[in-house]
Order: sequence, then C-alpha cells, then structure tokens
Amino acid sequence: MEKVMQKYLDKAEVLIEALPYIQRFNRKIIVVKYGGSAMVDEELKARVIQDVTLLKLVGFKPIIVHGGGKEISKWVGKVGMEPQFINGLRVTDAETMELAEMVLGKVNKSLVQLVEQLGVRAIGISGKDGGLLKVDKKLADGEDIGFVGDVKEVNADIIYDLLEKDFLPIIAPIGLDDDYNTYNINADDAACAIAKAINAEKLAFLTDIEGVYKDPKDPSTLISELNVSDGKKLMEEGYIGGGMLPKIQNCIDAIENGVSRVHILDGRIPHCLLLEIFTNKGIGTAIKNDVEERYYYGE
Amino acid sequence: MEKVMQKYLDKAEVLIEALPYIQRFNRKIIVVKYGGSAMVDEELKARVIQDVTLLKLVGFKPIIVHGGGKEISKWVGKVGMEPQFINGLRVTDAETMELAEMVLGKVNKSLVQLVEQLGVRAIGISGKDGGLLKVDKKLADGEDIGFVGDVKEVNADIIYDLLEKDFLPIIAPIGLDDDYNTYNINADDAACAIAKAINAEKLAFLTDIEGVYKDPKDPSTLISELNVSDGKKLMEEGYIGGGMLPKIQNCIDAIENGVSRVHILDGRIPHCLLLEIFTNKGIGTAIKNDVEERYYYGE
Amino acid sequence: MEKVMQKYLDKAEVLIEALPYIQRFNRKIIVVKYGGSAMVDEELKARVIQDVTLLKLVGFKPIIVHGGGKEISKWVGKVGMEPQFINGLRVTDAETMELAEMVLGKVNKSLVQLVEQLGVRAIGISGKDGGLLKVDKKLADGEDIGFVGDVKEVNADIIYDLLEKDFLPIIAPIGLDDDYNTYNINADDAACAIAKAINAEKLAFLTDIEGVYKDPKDPSTLISELNVSDGKKLMEEGYIGGGMLPKIQNCIDAIENGVSRVHILDGRIPHCLLLEIFTNKGIGTAIKNDVEERYYYGE
Amino acid sequence: MEKVMQKYLDKAEVLIEALPYIQRFNRKIIVVKYGGSAMVDEELKARVIQDVTLLKLVGFKPIIVHGGGKEISKWVGKVGMEPQFINGLRVTDAETMELAEMVLGKVNKSLVQLVEQLGVRAIGISGKDGGLLKVDKKLADGEDIGFVGDVKEVNADIIYDLLEKDFLPIIAPIGLDDDYNTYNINADDAACAIAKAINAEKLAFLTDIEGVYKDPKDPSTLISELNVSDGKKLMEEGYIGGGMLPKIQNCIDAIENGVSRVHILDGRIPHCLLLEIFTNKGIGTAIKNDVEERYYYGE
Amino acid sequence: MEKVMQKYLDKAEVLIEALPYIQRFNRKIIVVKYGGSAMVDEELKARVIQDVTLLKLVGFKPIIVHGGGKEISKWVGKVGMEPQFINGLRVTDAETMELAEMVLGKVNKSLVQLVEQLGVRAIGISGKDGGLLKVDKKLADGEDIGFVGDVKEVNADIIYDLLEKDFLPIIAPIGLDDDYNTYNINADDAACAIAKAINAEKLAFLTDIEGVYKDPKDPSTLISELNVSDGKKLMEEGYIGGGMLPKIQNCIDAIENGVSRVHILDGRIPHCLLLEIFTNKGIGTAIKNDVEERYYYGE
Amino acid sequence: MEKVMQKYLDKAEVLIEALPYIQRFNRKIIVVKYGGSAMVDEELKARVIQDVTLLKLVGFKPIIVHGGGKEISKWVGKVGMEPQFINGLRVTDAETMELAEMVLGKVNKSLVQLVEQLGVRAIGISGKDGGLLKVDKKLADGEDIGFVGDVKEVNADIIYDLLEKDFLPIIAPIGLDDDYNTYNINADDAACAIAKAINAEKLAFLTDIEGVYKDPKDPSTLISELNVSDGKKLMEEGYIGGGMLPKIQNCIDAIENGVSRVHILDGRIPHCLLLEIFTNKGIGTAIKNDVEERYYYGE
Repeated sequence: MEKVMQKYLDKAEVLIEALPYIQRFNRKIIVVKYGGSAMVDEELKARVIQDVTLLKLVGFKPIIVHGGGKEISKWVGKVGMEPQFINGLRVTDAETMELAEMVLGKVNKSLVQLVEQLGVRAIGISGKDGGLLKVDKKLADGEDIGFVGDVKEVNADIIYDLLEKDFLPIIAPIGLDDDYNTYNINADDAACAIAKAINAEKLAFLTDIEGVYKDPKDPSTLISELNVSDGKKLMEEGYIGGGMLPKIQNCIDAIENGVSRVHILDGRIPHCLLLEIFTNKGIGTAIKNDVEERYYYGE
Repeated sequence: MEKVMQKYLDKAEVLIEALPYIQRFNRKIIVVKYGGSAMVDEELKARVIQDVTLLKLVGFKPIIVHGGGKEISKWVGKVGMEPQFINGLRVTDAETMELAEMVLGKVNKSLVQLVEQLGVRAIGISGKDGGLLKVDKKLADGEDIGFVGDVKEVNADIIYDLLEKDFLPIIAPIGLDDDYNTYNINADDAACAIAKAINAEKLAFLTDIEGVYKDPKDPSTLISELNVSDGKKLMEEGYIGGGMLPKIQNCIDAIENGVSRVHILDGRIPHCLLLEIFTNKGIGTAIKNDVEERYYYGE
Repeated sequence: MEKVMQKYLDKAEVLIEALPYIQRFNRKIIVVKYGGSAMVDEELKARVIQDVTLLKLVGFKPIIVHGGGKEISKWVGKVGMEPQFINGLRVTDAETMELAEMVLGKVNKSLVQLVEQLGVRAIGISGKDGGLLKVDKKLADGEDIGFVGDVKEVNADIIYDLLEKDFLPIIAPIGLDDDYNTYNINADDAACAIAKAINAEKLAFLTDIEGVYKDPKDPSTLISELNVSDGKKLMEEGYIGGGMLPKIQNCIDAIENGVSRVHILDGRIPHCLLLEIFTNKGIGTAIKNDVEERYYYGE
Repeated sequence: MEKVMQKYLDKAEVLIEALPYIQRFNRKIIVVKYGGSAMVDEELKARVIQDVTLLKLVGFKPIIVHGGGKEISKWVGKVGMEPQFINGLRVTDAETMELAEMVLGKVNKSLVQLVEQLGVRAIGISGKDGGLLKVDKKLADGEDIGFVGDVKEVNADIIYDLLEKDFLPIIAPIGLDDDYNTYNINADDAACAIAKAINAEKLAFLTDIEGVYKDPKDPSTLISELNVSDGKKLMEEGYIGGGMLPKIQNCIDAIENGVSRVHILDGRIPHCLLLEIFTNKGIGTAIKNDVEERYYYGE
Repeated sequence: MEKVMQKYLDKAEVLIEALPYIQRFNRKIIVVKYGGSAMVDEELKARVIQDVTLLKLVGFKPIIVHGGGKEISKWVGKVGMEPQFINGLRVTDAETMELAEMVLGKVNKSLVQLVEQLGVRAIGISGKDGGLLKVDKKLADGEDIGFVGDVKEVNADIIYDLLEKDFLPIIAPIGLDDDYNTYNINADDAACAIAKAINAEKLAFLTDIEGVYKDPKDPSTLISELNVSDGKKLMEEGYIGGGMLPKIQNCIDAIENGVSRVHILDGRIPHCLLLEIFTNKGIGTAIKNDVEERYYYGE
Repeated sequence: MEKVMQKYLDKAEVLIEALPYIQRFNRKIIVVKYGGSAMVDEELKARVIQDVTLLKLVGFKPIIVHGGGKEISKWVGKVGMEPQFINGLRVTDAETMELAEMVLGKVNKSLVQLVEQLGVRAIGISGKDGGLLKVDKKLADGEDIGFVGDVKEVNADIIYDLLEKDFLPIIAPIGLDDDYNTYNINADDAACAIAKAINAEKLAFLTDIEGVYKDPKDPSTLISELNVSDGKKLMEEGYIGGGMLPKIQNCIDAIENGVSRVHILDGRIPHCLLLEIFTNKGIGTAIKNDVEERYYYGE
C-alpha cells in the first residue's frame, strides 16, 4: 500500500519537475523537423506524436515539418518508375515530383490522424497552401536536377493564422516557383526557413545520429552544446562533413536569424523531445548563440 | 473608334448588371461540389477556378468539395492493383483507400495551386484535418464494401475558422471513423453534409448532365425550378432514377436543413457558375423550398 | 439558342476579365471627386452611382467628395440674392455661405439616397461632422473674398471609423476655421486633401474634359499617362493653363503625398470609372510617380 | 479669502451631488427631442448644447433629434413659395419638401458645429443615411397631404455603430418610403420611434410648456409624475387635448416599448436637462411605468 | 548509463500519461478550497502551491479560496483580545473581525507571493474587491454571533475578468452586507458559492481527513465515489455527522448547481491535487451526479 | 420660488464649468498618493473617496497609492513590539514588516469598501500581486535598516489590465526583492514609480502642507506653479529641505519621465482634488515642464 502510494508521489514529482520548463516555453513556437527512423518505426512514431501533442497541450505552439523519405522510394518502385540521372545526380522529373507530392500528402494526413486521435486539433498543409513556401530552382553543382527547390520566401501569415485558430500545423516540404510549378524541398531546409520566418523559439531536428561529434568515430566526443563561433570553427577545420555539414549550416543560419536554440536530437531515443525540453538530461547537441540570455527558469 | 468605345461600354454594363447579385450574396457561403468533366477538361477546369475565385473576390465565401474520379481509376491501373468485389460490388480495401487518399491529395493541392495562381488564398484539407468529417461505415445492401463512409458528424468550426482567416477552403471527401480509420466518402454526400452543417446559402453540383428532366429522353422536359414537394412527388412517381436519385435526395435533404437553394449545373458549359449566379439565364435545375422569400434583388 | 448562350458566355468572360483588377484593389481606398456634367445629367448621375456602388460591393472602399456647382447658382437666383464682388472677384458672404451649405446638404443627401437605393450603406457628411475639415481663410490675390477656405487639417479618423463600420462616405466640401465659422471649400481641393490624409490608393476626378492635352486644340495630343516630372515640366513650359493648372497641381501634390495614382476622367462618358478600373481601355489621363512599382496584376 | 474658498468648496459639493446620477446613467442612451423656443433663442440654444455635451462627457450616450420649425416657414417665405391646401390642410408638395430638407440640413449642421466647438465628436445625419428611417405616407383624415411620413421601421444598427465610434448623433427627421421618395416626419414621432428602437433609457422632449396640467388654466395642477395608467385615464376623461394629446400618446408608447422614463421638459428654463438629470428638482412632467424598479441611487 | 537513461524515459512516460487529463480539463475552472494542515505545514504548503501552479501552466484555470484558521487564533492571543460568547457561542465582534481581516490579508498575500515565485501571475483579493461577495448576517440557532455572514450573491464578473487577464485569483473569504459592513465567511461556504456562481468544472476541498467513511471508525469503509442520491441517503440515515455534515451538504449543493465533480481530498498527502487529477489513483472521496457523462478520456 | 430655481441654475452652471476639464482629462490616468491627515480624519477621507470616484465616473482613470502611517504605529503598540534601531535609525525587521503588511492590507480593503459603497468597481492590491513592484534593499547612509525597499521595476501590465477591466486600482506600497522577500516601500516613492511606469497624465500628492514655499515661514511665498528648472534651482540654493526635498525630487523625476503635471495638494482642504482639477482655483503647487503644450481647454 505504502509502496503504491510512493509510486504515485514519484509521478507527481515528475510533473512538478516539469513546471519550470512548461512555464519557460509557454506560448513559444517550436518547429520540429520530423524524419528518419522516428518516422519509420511505428513505436517511435507514436512517441513523437505523443510528445508533440503534449507540448501543444501544456501551452507550447509546436509545428511539425516532415519529410517522406523511404516511403517515396518505396512508391517509385511500386509504380515501376525509372530513376533519371544527370551527371550522376538523381533527378526529380515531373513524374517523380507528382508521385513525391502524393506520398508526402499521404504521410502528412497520417500524422494529422495520429494527432487528432490524441484529441488535439491538427491541420496538414504543404507549402502550396496559402502560398506558404515560394522557391527558386536549386542547382546541384550548376546542374539542373529537376523540380528541387530552394526556399526564397515564407508567407508566415499562414502559420500565424493557423496557430491563432489553435491548430497544430503539420507541413509537407513542397513549394511553388514564380510560375506556379511544384517543387520538392529538402525537409531540413524547409524547417529551417519556417523557423526563421516565424522567429521560432526552438528548432529541433529528429535525426538518426546521437548528435554532433568532434570525432564521429569516437562516441566520447559528442558535443552537448555548441555555440555559433565554435560551430563555424569546427566546419572550417573540417571536423564536420557529409550530411552533417548542411545541417549544421542550417542550424547556424537559424540561430543567426532569431531562433533561440536549435537541437540535433537522436530520434531513435523514445521521447527524445520531452527529455530535451522537460528534463536536465542533455540529449544530442544544442546549438546556441555565443552569448545567451539567462535561459532556463532557476538556472 | 466609336465602336471600340461601345465595346467597352457594353462591358461596363455587364458589370453593372452583376451588381444586384453581388449585393444579394455578399458574405454568403456557397458550397461547390466539383467533379465530372469540369475536372478532366483543362479548359473547363480553368473556368471553374476562375469562377470560384471571382466569387471569393466579390465578397462571397465559396468552398470547394471535390472528387477524384477518373484519376483514382488511372492510378489503380498504374500501380497494378487488382480490384476486389463482394457480391459484385467493388470494394475499397485498405490498399485502395491508401491510393485513393494519395490521389485525392494530389487533386486537392492542384486546385489549391490554381486558386493561388489567381491571387486568392486557398487551403486544401481533407475531412481528417481538425476532425472535420466523422463517418460510419456504409453498407451497400447489407454488404461490407470496405472503407466507404457515411458522414455522421461535421465539425463546422474548422470551416468557420478558415473562412474567418480569409481562406478559400478546398476539401477532399475523406473522413475518420470512431477508431480513426480512414474512409472514402462520396463527394456529393460530403458536399451536402458540409453545406447543411454550415448553413450554406447555396449548394451547387457541377455535373455532366444539363439538369433534371421529367423525361430524360426528351430534352424539352428539362426542369428549371423544382420545389421540394414536386421533387418528392417526381421521385415517388418514379420519374427520377439511376445516379440522379441519390443526388436529388441530397438536394432535398440540404434544402430541408437550411440551405436556401441547391443547383444542379451542367459543368460542361464554361462559366456555368457565373451564369447561374450573375445572370438571369436559367442554367440547369434549381431546387428550392415550396415557399420562398422574395429572393433576388429587384425581382 | 446557341446565340443566346454565346451572349451569356460573353458576359461571363467580361466578369472574369475584371478578376485581376478586383483583386488588385481589394480593400483599397478610392476617392472620387464628383462634379461637372456627370452631376447634372440624370442618366450620367445614375451611372456614376452604379459604378461607385459596384466598387464598394466588390471590395473597394470608395469615398465620394462632391461639389454643388450649378445648383448653388440656381438657388442664389431663386432666393433673389445679389452677388457681391470685390476687385472683380465673387464674394462668398455669410448669406451666400448659408445658402451654399443648404444646397450642398441637399445634393449630399440626394446622393446618399441613390446609393441606399442600390442597397449599399451610405452616410452623408460635411467637413463639419467630427471636425473632418479644418480651414484657413483663402485669399485671392490678397483680397478677402469671404467664407472661402483652404484645408489646413483633415481629421482622418472620422473617415476610418465610418469605413470600418462599412459606410460609403459622401462628403460635402464645407469646413470650419479655428473660430468655428463655416467655409466653402473648392471640391477638388477637398478631395485632394482627403485622399492625401487617408493615403488613398486612387484619386479620380470626374471632369468635363477628355483629359490633359499637350495642345488643347489638338485632340490627338491627349496624354494617357503623365508622371510627376513631366507634369511639372509641362506646367513650367506653359502648356497647362486655365482651370487645369490648379487641378494638375492638386494631382501632383496628391501623388507626392502617398496617393498611388490620380485620374482625370471624362465624366461625360458613361461608366468612365469602371472603364478606367476594370478594363485596359485608357480613359483620360493618369498621373503617377516617375518610378512605379509593378502595378496591375499580370503586367 | 475664506469666502472665496467657500465658494469653491460649494462648487465641489455640487459636483459631488451629481455623482450618484452620473453613476446611475453611465453608458445609458438618452434621446433628446430638441425644438421650440430652446431652438430659437441663441442663449437657450447654447445651454442645451452645453447640457447635451456634458451628458456625453460624463459617460451618457445622448442623441439629439431636432425639428426645424420656424426656420422652414421663414425660408418658404423667402423663396416666395405658395402654400398649398387640400380640404383646408397644408400640403407638403415636392417643392416644399425639397426646401424643408435644405433647411433641416442647415439646422442639423449648425448643431454639429456647436457641439464640435465644445470639443465633442458630433455627426449630423438624416433618416436617409444608412436607411435609418423608413416611412409610409401619412394620411390626415384620409386625405393625401403630400410628403409627410409615418415611421414604419428604424434601422437601429446605424445608431449603434455611430455610438460605438463615440459620435454624438444629431438627427434630422427625414425618411424614405419604399420607392425611395423623401418624406418629412414629425420630430416628436421620429424621436419616439428612435428611442423605442434602441431601447433608450430616457426620452426627453424640450417643449414650450411647463409640463402636463390637469387643468391647463390652473398652474397649480402641474403633474410632476404620471404613470401610464393615469396618463391613459386622463386622456380618456378628456383632460388632455390639443397638441399635447399626440405627445402624451408618444410618451406612453415609448414607455410601453422599453424606454424607462419620458420627460416633458420646459425648454425655456436654462439647463432644464441638467436640472432634471442631476438634481432632485422636479422639472416638468415625468412619465413612467405603473410599477418601477428602485430607480435613483440612494433613494 | 543505461539505467540513467531508463530513469529519464520513465519520467517522460509519466508526462505522457498526464496527456489525456491535461486535454480533458483544458481551460476548465477548478476551485480549490485551501485550508487545514496543508496550510500549516510549510512542506505541504509548497506542494499545494506547486500543484495549483502546474494546473495553471498546463491550461487549467485554478482559483484558490483559503481560510486563515490557526493564524487568526494566534493573533487573537498576541493582541490580548478577550473572546466573547453569547449562549456559549463564540462571537465575531467588530474588533475580532478587524483582526481576522488583517490576518486573512496576510495569508492571502503570502500565497500570492509563493505563486509569483513560481513564475505565475497571481492576484490576491477578498470578497470586498469588485463587490465579489455579498452576505447576509448568519444566525446560529437564532442567536446573533456578530460579523459572520452567509453568501447571498457572488459577482462572478470579477472572476471572469481576472481569469481573462490570465491571473490566478486567490480569494480571502470576507464579504460585505447591504450596509457595507465587513463579515467573515466560512471558507468552505465561500468556495462552494464561488464554484457554483462560475460553473466550475471541479471543486476540491483540501481537508485533514482521508475522505468520507461509512463508518468513521473503520478505515476500510472509505467511500471513493459518492453520487448525490447516495450522499443524501447517508445523511438521512445519520452516517454523516459533525463537521462533515455541512461539508457534504456544500458538495451536493455544488453538484446540483452545475459543478461537475467535487472532491474531498486529504491535504496531508503531498500533491494530493495532482494525484487526483493526473493519475487513476483514487484519492479521497469524489462526489458526482447520479448519472454522469462519459468523463475521462479513454475510460 | 424664484430663489429656489436660481439655486438650481447655479448648480447647473457649476457642472457646465467643469465641462472643459472633464473633456481635457477624458481617459487620462491620474495617480493619487493618498496619505496624511486626509487619511485619518473620517470627514476628509469621505471627501477624498468621493473625489476619486467622481473622477472615475466622469471618464478619468484614477489610481490610488496609499500609505498606512499612523495605523502602523498604533498596531506596533497594540501588539507590544519593541522598535529596533541601528545607528539611531528605525529598523523594519521581519516582525514589523509582517505587521505593517497586515495593517496596510486592512487600510487597503477599507478604501476598496468606501469606493464600492459609492457604486464604483475597486480592486485592492499590493506590489506583490502580479509582481507589480520589484525592489532592491534600501540603505540609509549605508546602514541596513531592514525590509525597506527601493522600487527597481514596475510591472505596468498589471495596472493596464485592471484599468481595461474598468477597475479603480488601490495599491498598498509593498514589494518583493529578487528572492521574493517582502519589503515596505515609501508610499511617495511607490506612487512616483507607478506614475512614471504607466505614463500617468497627472500625479497628485495629498499632503499636510499647503504647497511649496520659497520661505516656509512666510505663507505669502507659496509657489503656485514651479517648472523643473526652477525647482532644481530652489533645491540647489537650499530653499527646499526636510521632508519636502525627496518629495520635490520625486516630482521632478516624474515630470522628466513623462508625467505631464505633478501636484502637491493640501489634503486638509476638503475636495482639494476636485478643486484642483475642475476649477481655476490654484490649490497647492503644480510642478510642470519648463515648456508646456497648450494645456487646458480654452486657454
């Protein structure tokens, strides 16, 4: 009996521990780039949706920007399409773009469904709705690789209007160019552009890595906190490479444009979002300004 | 010179003629069920979008509910799926539902794109967003034909919120049951349910017929105006059959639940919506109450 | 039959042509200086009111500033008043001012009546209401010509409040000086002062001429578009004289104070306002900035 | 010195005495029918305007409905018009109506001017503006006496909108019939109709009599308070006649339609409005319900 | 390492478990009657304030109504006042009332201080502020026991206004009678009256007992849920007595006037409020309607 | 009879005289520092409350900041506390602070009660509520004299929110330091800090002196108006000393931080507030900017 009671008291204490964090981020916008394993594994998926929904319910204003990753490849195969290449680069031709949009739409609505199921009002849009994302064609080493776009303008009003009506916006990374052609956008880029445009408090990337390492081969070199100057230095000195390079550039870009903190989280850890926000457990790598205002309640 | 001037004056007169109609429907909600040929023919499609956009700009509050029709069949073939049948009825199994949702999503965003291109703020949603459409499984003669739903609840707040934020909502007819499974909904049914739930002023069906005939084989028996009593009588007496029967039932249902007028328009006529609303040219069949308030300005 | 249908389709096309213009000026303020023949001829009068009412219904925010012209002279005769002159200039003594205010009041309410008749909410005020127009005494070549005023202050709040309540304001050009005496104001001046004070998008003068000519005797020298620099040059070089000189000065003043375009329209052409705004037919003379932002939709 | 101070303290006490009355009528609507001597005598006029302006400033929402009385007769003579008669009744033909509207407009704006001069925002309208007053033709003993109207509809929204924008509305008693012809309305009737339509707290008539007498020849029979039943009885018993009869009927009508108190005040007493409202001095006759809620603060 | 991680994951799970409860009570008003041991023990006090603050931060609208209990007795002694008795009943004379108000004020502000310290906006008022609580003198067995009041009117607007401005209201149980004398109110009664007046979702009493027992001497007879009918029956049958009787009457009264659930909680258990609301651990006794709508999410 | 009437007319004239002042301060914030004799004498107290309530009712936004003065001393004696001294300075130790807060709370609510009694919505708060006043410990000549604070931050939002909800805020001068300890604040300092933070139009000190004298011994040297430069000069030249020095410094500080006028009024004169604001009788000393905008209506 006593033991049961203690268990409940422990639970209450956990909630109380969350109090300063809830207070700290009340009504703050948090953009979550959702992708990778956390999107494939059904168990992890449920956890991410629970986390984001909880953030919404306790007063945050979360926004999900998602990719479609493996689903798109699966469907390309299913339909029997032949991938095209230019100078060895995969090309998003009109047909691929059409299929990608369909798959992203499907993923988008499945996320809406999961959030609605938890009793929170969600709305799934793409960058076409309300003209949210305007793009220019992206060239890869000067080569035209088809309908792949760079965000050149974010119509932030759309998001403010949806947040004001208490929706949790779920956004597929698709945009339109000046001639109203459809383009695919890298989900990291889209999340970063949106976070900057709406002055998000936080931008969190759910990835398949533990964070940024000084030496990727040595797990003990995981960097918990990285300020902008040090991040730039690491890039200059060549410590950061591969897929991590553009991600870090995105992070620094976001910080320099008004986002307070960017987090590279390991999406393979269940509830990584909650752990990062509601506990003092350092998950992944936090990128922040060189000089930071007094941040967490009680620090 | 004189002649050129006259041409312009004629144009001005046309605009002036529209004045009482614009005034009459100022801030009124018009639900347009968009489907059939008008959705396949690119020329007609452009006209429909122009019409709806104009309605929005001159002060109406139009809402589009669309089907996906021939596109879905096309993709079923493309993917190489085998249609299932139960007792001779086509079944929407999970795989078909998944594909249908993808295709409807694609159609939905392509309509958003066209409206945005004309400079009007559009948002494309399905009945999943914000829990807009709740369904029960529909049985066909007692048989389970899969994920086909009957609307049982419309969350009208979602639409009011989007209209308040000046969006033109474009809605794909998909809904969720109590266990949050995805269901396909007949677009006519969805449009009718939505029009009723938000007390639309008008509900217009873009169809591939000229209207309702007393004798479908005799074009001279086209009915311009049909009140509810006469409509019911026609149905009882067996004059109305086939696909027209459920449509007329939907129309009468809408009228009896607060929609002022329902129009069955011939979507194959360019600008049929504008013609119906802005001129005294009777297009198709108008269904209305037995007793009607003085309706058009100046009549 | 086919022919009748074509006629209707042509009408629909005219409405569609108006779409980009409606969109362009949505919620924009347009000040119409209403006077001259368009105010005397009942037929033209009806057309002007139709035009302004249509502008209101399709989403513009029109404001009418009117004169009283010939009606005042008529009543001066009717009452048997003797016109006074100082140094050959007509004088507005207290008695004339009283009568002028009465006539302008009558004209004002007759315009309200016509707009109301078309189902639009109008309100007729003068520069006294809410202290809208504050004036200084105007001297003509140093001579006191009585109660004729120069606008020195516009209380724009009054207009914003009435627009917010969805009124179409109709304004008689009368103002008060610091001692709360009543003054007559030239209607062109009043319209220009108001347009500047509320940052109107457009200011349109309905006049009895076709527009600005380089050589008034040669109709082929009509100027369609005139930028500020060229307008000033024309004035310096003496091309513009007579009653046109202060009008052009007013136009340039308006442009230099935030009005985007000023139009000198021929009020004798029916629907000249609609023609100017909704078609690409160049009516009269448009005065604009030397450098202009991309203006019309689709240009 | 002491004496000067005492004078000031007395003044302060007067203000404090007004406190419960100011509180009692805070944000309440008071319709003042302004006419008679109080409109002719410049001294009295200034007092009335001061009173109404003070009411506005201390938180009431006063509305003035005025007549034009003697000014109209003066101008009829000035213009040299011939009065018409049918069966001995004076007729308001189109010409007379035109002149009456001009004179009422002049009076209207002169009142606006006086209120503005005291620093309060006034707006002068007639029953045409915003379609405020809709009328039917009034017949006198079955005879058509021209453009004289009975109010059949008050568009109260107009007044609420102007009050919301903090205007003091000043209203000339002119209305439109269904064919949008202009009609003159008895100012008492107009004031009463407006007071009823907007549920005014008070309706005060400024008249040229001291109040209602049981025996008009005996000043000692002045009635201070009259409830509806007693008023009806007096009328039945023939005590009330002449011009007082319709006025009392108006008063009772107003009370029975939601106005809390109607006052017949002697407009010849300076500040009669303030005296009635801010002191316990009974001025004129108050008409009220048979049963009344506890009314004044502290009673 | 693994173990540390597990601890954090467990914490995240606790937060996720709270999700349906947070959602269920979003924007709902919860009145907490705060008194007894939980107010004396500093440790427990901190827990209660944490709980209420957390409720506020996750979207509830809590209101605290507190007593002063032991502090008042302490100060009565400190000041050296002599308690008065009438027929053996303790009397709240003017002097005692003055001191009680001072002590309650002190307690009130100390609670404000604790809530503010946790970063939440609190405001401490008594029933005098804004005329929140109007009372009648309470008689004990027909005897006048001084300034002890029964709530006869709650001015709920005050609370709505403070909630709208995002304050957490903390209320001392003091009221005014019609002559504006100060009265002490039993805190249970005040909490109950307020909960009823604002249609609170929940009313929670923090007490020094475990809950309601069928047989107070037998701990195993603790009643977890009690509906109104059963509660009345227990009272009739004499099972409930002593101080519990008026409390249960208050509870039933609250339920019958629109409060959904009333909780008698053991304030000696740390975080009893959180345990009751966020877990399925039944703390104390819940009083509810005989028939209840489906209540908790997922039940 | 005539004489009675004249008396009433005189009263009306007094109200009319107040008109320009009421207009001048409409919706302006006036902070009244209430203390001294005006707080002790019941007669004067009633007058002050009447004055402030009247100001509220005629459209001003008054705020009362009060001291507790003699009441605190009275209670210190009553409780039998021993005053502490450090280097001859009286010390506010924790026990004294506790009692002071209790007394100030009592005074606060008694003022609320008086205002409510006059039918105006009051709310009594201290600087703890909503974190209104943040303080640093004040040192007297470097000595720690206990819980006496200097205002370092005013959370003006609290006041704006309460004013918006139409409350008359009554504020006790108590604040919290960064560690959430309770501090006493000099009421003059608190009033001044609040007036500055909310840009009050006026700040009025009710004192026990007639105003500022050049020579305190010579009543004829009372200064009616003092601008900032002259005030500074007087201080430099040593004319101002004693308790008046910090008061004048406060006044100048307020003026230099956006308050338009500060008044040092003789609280012993009944209705001194009304006399200052509503008449041209110069009461006490007005401190103002060297250069002042045209101030009173009609000057």
